[in-house]
Amino acid sequence: MNQQLTILRNWLQDNQIDLAYITDPSHIHYFSGFHSEPHERILALFVPKDAEPFLFVPALEIEEAQNSDWAFQVSGYLDSQNPWDLIQEAIKKNSGVPNKMAIEKNSLTVDRLDALKQRMPQTDFSTDLTQLIQQMQLKKSTAEKEIMLEAGHWADVAFEIGFKAIKAGAMEQEIVAEIEYQLKRKGVPSMSFDTLVLAGKNAANPHGTPGENQVKPNELVLFDLGVVWKGYCSDATRTVSFKEPTDFQRKIHAIVLEAQLAATKAVKPGVKASKIDKIARDVISSYGYGEYFNHRLGHGIGTTVHEFPSIVEGNDMTLEAGMCFSIEPGIYIPDQVGVRVEDCLYVTKDGCENFTKTPKELQIFD
Amino acid sequence: MNQQLTILRNWLQDNQIDLAYITDPSHIHYFSGFHSEPHERILALFVPKDAEPFLFVPALEIEEAQNSDWAFQVSGYLDSQNPWDLIQEAIKKNSGVPNKMAIEKNSLTVDRLDALKQRMPQTDFSTDLTQLIQQMQLKKSTAEKEIMLEAGHWADVAFEIGFKAIKAGAMEQEIVAEIEYQLKRKGVPSMSFDTLVLAGKNAANPHGTPGENQVKPNELVLFDLGVVWKGYCSDATRTVSFKEPTDFQRKIHAIVLEAQLAATKAVKPGVKASKIDKIARDVISSYGYGEYFNHRLGHGIGTTVHEFPSIVEGNDMTLEAGMCFSIEPGIYIPDQVGVRVEDCLYVTKDGCENFTKTPKELQIFD
Repeated sequence: MNQQLTILRNWLQDNQIDLAYITDPSHIHYFSGFHSEPHERILALFVPKDAEPFLFVPALEIEEAQNSDWAFQVSGYLDSQNPWDLIQEAIKKNSGVPNKMAIEKNSLTVDRLDALKQRMPQTDFSTDLTQLIQQMQLKKSTAEKEIMLEAGHWADVAFEIGFKAIKAGAMEQEIVAEIEYQLKRKGVPSMSFDTLVLAGKNAANPHGTPGENQVKPNELVLFDLGVVWKGYCSDATRTVSFKEPTDFQRKIHAIVLEAQLAATKAVKPGVKASKIDKIARDVISSYGYGEYFNHRLGHGIGTTVHEFPSIVEGNDMTLEAGMCFSIEPGIYIPDQVGVRVEDCLYVTKDGCENFTKTPKELQIFD
Repeated sequence: MNQQLTILRNWLQDNQIDLAYITDPSHIHYFSGFHSEPHERILALFVPKDAEPFLFVPALEIEEAQNSDWAFQVSGYLDSQNPWDLIQEAIKKNSGVPNKMAIEKNSLTVDRLDALKQRMPQTDFSTDLTQLIQQMQLKKSTAEKEIMLEAGHWADVAFEIGFKAIKAGAMEQEIVAEIEYQLKRKGVPSMSFDTLVLAGKNAANPHGTPGENQVKPNELVLFDLGVVWKGYCSDATRTVSFKEPTDFQRKIHAIVLEAQLAATKAVKPGVKASKIDKIARDVISSYGYGEYFNHRLGHGIGTTVHEFPSIVEGNDMTLEAGMCFSIEPGIYIPDQVGVRVEDCLYVTKDGCENFTKTPKELQIFD
């Protein structure tokens, strides 16, 4: 049994909970080594306190699950069968009807919980696994860090491809296509989120969508991208210039970079997450652009691009070695300019290490 | 107010429910015209029985929502704010604390319902919107059908690109990259699911993953793909041959095609969904391959690739004009061959119309 399952089982025993039901596909991967995106079908990992864990998957996936790293039972259901009846049976047979079943309240939907409650009316479902899993995933092991460095490397490769594709008249969506094409050819199966390439004013919308908007000379181009690699994500942002930037663009980029570097420099065990956010925000505010930095400084990263710790005002969590998160200040002035600079990093015993190495200074491409 | 909102409001009034809370991003798009993928952030559409509807979005998205087709209120929250407190306030101010709030039980997570219950302890959350929305989306309008034909056209374009990329030694992932690259360049922003290109034995796994496996002469190549276009999905599968297929490959393809055509021919209003599944299954079973067709015949399609009606044993829903779904029989014989042929279609008053037009006969590429 791997370390993750062992920790979960110990927790179940300590808390006298009979069974854990894992629903989030990235968490199923984390505990079982088996990865699948079930869409509307049911994919579930059941971990009893003191019987063998088992995977429950759509029939289509049974073979793949059996051929994966998962060493325990796999059962499945056909589309013509009711999965909840089969789950009820499997639980009964394997470990008996639980008195207490812990669930992932932030991923289990209301109807699925209702289906369980209906079949196990005596079971108490009030315990939430969310915090335990967040806690477990909060600090990455050295092995996980190594994979995340590889994922970061692929983001660096992606920037290189994207920067090469910059030319007058290139549409944002063409550059996105080029990046994803080259990565896929190199064997990177998927991006960790929709790649953003935003040119000129379009970059002033921090969640803008790449489209037919074209790269023009003397404008900035914002790249925000990442990949999924061996189950772990990367995420990084660079803002570069096509031909000479204006003085104003230079100034805004320099402020964002100063904020990014100042916050990064402050990262070490013992510092509060909110403090890191404040350091970056203070730099930007000191130049009078505070109102244009309208999102948190960063988010945790690991098997997903939205984990803990959140680097945000009000989060007084103390940083510890092994935590991984983004530092991504930005300034977005509508109809003028948008700049963001982002690296994700790993907290070390006395500082931090970035997963991405692409230079952050304002690069100019001709 | 658009037709969708009007139907929803009438339903609320008929059922004396004060407020509907829409959570699924594709349904928010369906009702509001505003599309966004909020990841872990909160995106919500609240539709009161008799006050103005309002969108609640992350601060980052406020501008985009205001610039979208949505004509009503938009409010938002910063990462540093508690969205549930703001939602509670907004509901109070807009339409008052509801006695009854209907929710989407198949997309709302348990923790989010708990957050609402905590703030509105007197409110009854027992009503589910799932069936109403499924019912509303079950039959597509002529306007929706037109968009789905466009989405289908893009799938045909994708096949053309993919077929051209077939050559000895081409890796599955390279062909996927080529398809998605060319589509993105043409302005198709996203696929409706991860594109599948599976060669040879790899196609015998109906949910296999494209990788470094290479196309070899005298092997079949399975393409399963679709796009999202103006909020609607396409989905189609073709299995083709690189160089001359073997007699066995020809035979298996012919059986699958016969099943696909027989089922398609039977589609018209008044027939049961399960009957269509049975027709295809009977064809395959009559040749002795029934055990190798291990999934339902089809799924509904529209704003998502997993809607109703499900074309499956046991679903006695009667087909009606305007319903849209896939017909996708397959035969997967481990370590030998995998064939699937799929079109999605629109039920007309006396038959059906396919959204994709790429020939289904076994095409051979050299």
